Amino acid sequence: MAHDNTFHSPLNPVNFLRRSAFIHPEKIAVQYGERHYTYRELEERVNRLSRRLRQEGLKRHDRVAFLCPNTPPLLEAHFAVPAAGGILVAINTRLNAGEIAHILLHSGARWLFVDEELIPLVESFEGTRLRMVRIADTGGPGDPYEDFIAAAPADPVESWLVDEEETISLNYTSGTTGQPKGVMYTYRGAYINALGQAMETGMCGDSVYMWSLPMFHCNGWCFPWAVVAVSGTQVCLRRPDPAVLWSLLKNSGVTHYCGSPTVQIMLMNHAQACTLDRPVTVCVAGAPPSPTLLGQLKARNFKPIHVYGLTETYGPTTSCVWRSEWDAQSAEAQARLLARQGQAQVTADLVRIVDDEMNDVPRDGATMGEVVMRGNIVMKGYYEDPDATAHAFRGGWFHSGDLGVWHPDGDIELRDRKKDIIISGGENISTIEVEQAVAKHPAVLECAVVAIPDEKWGERPKAFVTLIPGQQATEQEVIAFCREQIAHYKCPAAVEFGDLPKTSTGKVQKFLLRQKEWAGKEKRIN
Amino acid sequence: MAHDNTFHSPLNPVNFLRRSAFIHPEKIAVQYGERHYTYRELEERVNRLSRRLRQEGLKRHDRVAFLCPNTPPLLEAHFAVPAAGGILVAINTRLNAGEIAHILLHSGARWLFVDEELIPLVESFEGTRLRMVRIADTGGPGDPYEDFIAAAPADPVESWLVDEEETISLNYTSGTTGQPKGVMYTYRGAYINALGQAMETGMCGDSVYMWSLPMFHCNGWCFPWAVVAVSGTQVCLRRPDPAVLWSLLKNSGVTHYCGSPTVQIMLMNHAQACTLDRPVTVCVAGAPPSPTLLGQLKARNFKPIHVYGLTETYGPTTSCVWRSEWDAQSAEAQARLLARQGQAQVTADLVRIVDDEMNDVPRDGATMGEVVMRGNIVMKGYYEDPDATAHAFRGGWFHSGDLGVWHPDGDIELRDRKKDIIISGGENISTIEVEQAVAKHPAVLECAVVAIPDEKWGERPKAFVTLIPGQQATEQEVIAFCREQIAHYKCPAAVEFGDLPKTSTGKVQKFLLRQKEWAGKEKRIN
Repeated sequence: MAHDNTFHSPLNPVNFLRRSAFIHPEKIAVQYGERHYTYRELEERVNRLSRRLRQEGLKRHDRVAFLCPNTPPLLEAHFAVPAAGGILVAINTRLNAGEIAHILLHSGARWLFVDEELIPLVESFEGTRLRMVRIADTGGPGDPYEDFIAAAPADPVESWLVDEEETISLNYTSGTTGQPKGVMYTYRGAYINALGQAMETGMCGDSVYMWSLPMFHCNGWCFPWAVVAVSGTQVCLRRPDPAVLWSLLKNSGVTHYCGSPTVQIMLMNHAQACTLDRPVTVCVAGAPPSPTLLGQLKARNFKPIHVYGLTETYGPTTSCVWRSEWDAQSAEAQARLLARQGQAQVTADLVRIVDDEMNDVPRDGATMGEVVMRGNIVMKGYYEDPDATAHAFRGGWFHSGDLGVWHPDGDIELRDRKKDIIISGGENISTIEVEQAVAKHPAVLECAVVAIPDEKWGERPKAFVTLIPGQQATEQEVIAFCREQIAHYKCPAAVEFGDLPKTSTGKVQKFLLRQKEWAGKEKRIN
Repeated sequence: MAHDNTFHSPLNPVNFLRRSAFIHPEKIAVQYGERHYTYRELEERVNRLSRRLRQEGLKRHDRVAFLCPNTPPLLEAHFAVPAAGGILVAINTRLNAGEIAHILLHSGARWLFVDEELIPLVESFEGTRLRMVRIADTGGPGDPYEDFIAAAPADPVESWLVDEEETISLNYTSGTTGQPKGVMYTYRGAYINALGQAMETGMCGDSVYMWSLPMFHCNGWCFPWAVVAVSGTQVCLRRPDPAVLWSLLKNSGVTHYCGSPTVQIMLMNHAQACTLDRPVTVCVAGAPPSPTLLGQLKARNFKPIHVYGLTETYGPTTSCVWRSEWDAQSAEAQARLLARQGQAQVTADLVRIVDDEMNDVPRDGATMGEVVMRGNIVMKGYYEDPDATAHAFRGGWFHSGDLGVWHPDGDIELRDRKKDIIISGGENISTIEVEQAVAKHPAVLECAVVAIPDEKWGERPKAFVTLIPGQQATEQEVIAFCREQIAHYKCPAAVEFGDLPKTSTGKVQKFLLRQKEWAGKEKRIN
């Protein structure tokens, strides 16, 4: 046998950039408004950022945080931080200052790169040991980020990667406890999932990927790496405004993008909506697309792929794959079939639906069970949280907390949720976190928060509140009170006052509240 | 951190079949004349074959040999043998009985599956401890292979795979010494290369792959696994007769195939050649396509990809990727650029060209050096040949024995060969082996064999012979004499009698012979 390293290169998505920059130095890697970077320029910027981090004393596995919209620096960080040997922490920009502080402290980040627009969220860290670098997003001298990277040479740093199962990034997710947990991705998982996403969406060197999906979500589902693997072009943008997206779809040769149904609905119902002259592949995730949405997308020459996953599975891990047998079905039946979550993508292990004893439920399309996963596209664990990790992996499989049925053809379909989570516009909200915010109101005796269906956002939180006898509070007051504590998107969309249904032992029966709100619907998720 | 196996599945191409059969049981996996197998049927046949092998006592890593054209059993073996825990040895059907015997003995194969047409090649093994199973290729009862698999149940065997770097197959290659060496592929390498081939050729679920390339060549460059990864369809065939290939291209919806320029030239110059109504992607390997061939392929709606590799690199490891800068060049210049071997495919490490001290040669398109490779798409080593393995990997890189130049843009281009190998119609021929066959002739004093250019085959062997004083032999006699010893395709195409040029110390100067034969050509390979 040869020396191990002759036939074993650690799977490392940074190598996608090394290769694409070597072969296609003059090809456009990044488009961003009037700016663009070739692969040569992208690699140089990545090299400078990684060198500068090393110059400032980065040690192996140091955490480097980014609080930033989908601008080029965050894309660069996906290569520069692992190239330097650090661990990338891309933070959800929709969180509030307290939530962001928790992530910065929990991850132990030594650097924070922050877009100037978001500085108010992290002002409390000014003057602390956290090294903060502002991103003015001008792309030119005087922009602190640009000056930071310009100070370092453009040649690559030596890789410190020894084991492909080292952690490449932390992705914080709202768990059921309300305390965000840092999901650990590995180099191996990121590499394999990048190849899988490229294959599932049929990307090639001519592909142009539009950044409508936040890059802080599961590392943009690994597309920063996938697009570079195929030497394609990525179109960055500050916010997924539908007018901007339509302009890019029409004028920038976009071939691929991803987003929740909320983003798709905004797009399809926008004044600029039109039928494109070329097919655009779109991954719809976070909730199943409705028949109406699917019809609109197809009519406008979009090719929707319904995918499903969680932060813990590097984003999508299943796809609802079209079967030729479905061709003959009615449009309504087809839409119902496409609303299924499907089965494992090419690089994932087949997913199961199990009962409480980890036995497969019957494949009858009726018996409910929990979706469980394992394999290369499953997280390594929660950062510094062995208890939560052990709990999530009980029985040797990752427990999604999603409840569903298993169809006779092997496809899974979600129906309900075991965990106290609301998915609103593709973002996870912990009902417990919302309850804790509501409960702090001086007039509130107790409360329960559940998801209610919402046409635009899929689901929104609703609070059921019992006031302290003699105290007063209005719906608006409760909502305003929450907005001072937690991110706005997490705050209740409605508040209802009254007694809470309880068991004989006094436990709140949230399922009764949900039953009422979801009456007449087949599923209790949206 | 979670338990290792929750987030780490050994990379194993057998899982591609498990998944495709689960998701697409009714889809056509294999077409073969009037027969076809759905994915469900393919998996069942694979399961039966692997179960039967275990029933007959297969132990982990036992070698299972196949001597078989591109019929369904050899495709099934690519899944069943690793599923059972064995190591697949797919033998070149163009070898002669002695050469095949050497491979069977060297690999220590316990089973030999042999197509009835090829039984004369292995008759000497009848009655030995080698378990022989005949393949009558009827696909029905009474066919010994069919009866062999029918006797076992159709449910899958439990996997014994522990480490993804276990050996999945041996691919014997004519080395420079004339003694074939067993190149070891790993599960990991096969899996990663299968994904890489699917991406490089843009395969998807609608793809139909035609088996013009022998499956015994580098496991069909991993396409048996790649096509199943994308849940595509494979078209088997007994021999790549151009009339058959054209009929399949016209009538079977073929979208992809591979082959040497020799196969392509036969196709393009066939009476049935026509322009297809859909694009067909074709990998051309074994030698660079000529400008004439490229022009013919493109005119007929084929999309040629020029790829390069060796048995030791799982087949192709580089592609000549089109750069948009080339659009403006003349057709002749474009053809010259496309004749380059290019650079690493997406899952391979960048290849280098080095001098004798392992330093990179200048990227000047002129300085010659040897092409070296490393990484996941490089063999684990030669089976039971640590010396040859150590020699091949000296300096920590696999030495291809191919000589070439490195262009300023990073592409490599082969110009000559260090090792004594002739590549004829995509098959390796060891000049030393041919020399030994010629030298056994009683009238021959000494001889030297070199490659000469050939329009159809790329290269053919030519023997330069000095006869023993007073002895006589004609060209035809020498060729006929060789045909009794070695495979026909290895025998000299021409024999020239006379003295051999030698150094002062008596070493034959083969380079002078080659110089003469390749006079006026830029390269000394074809």
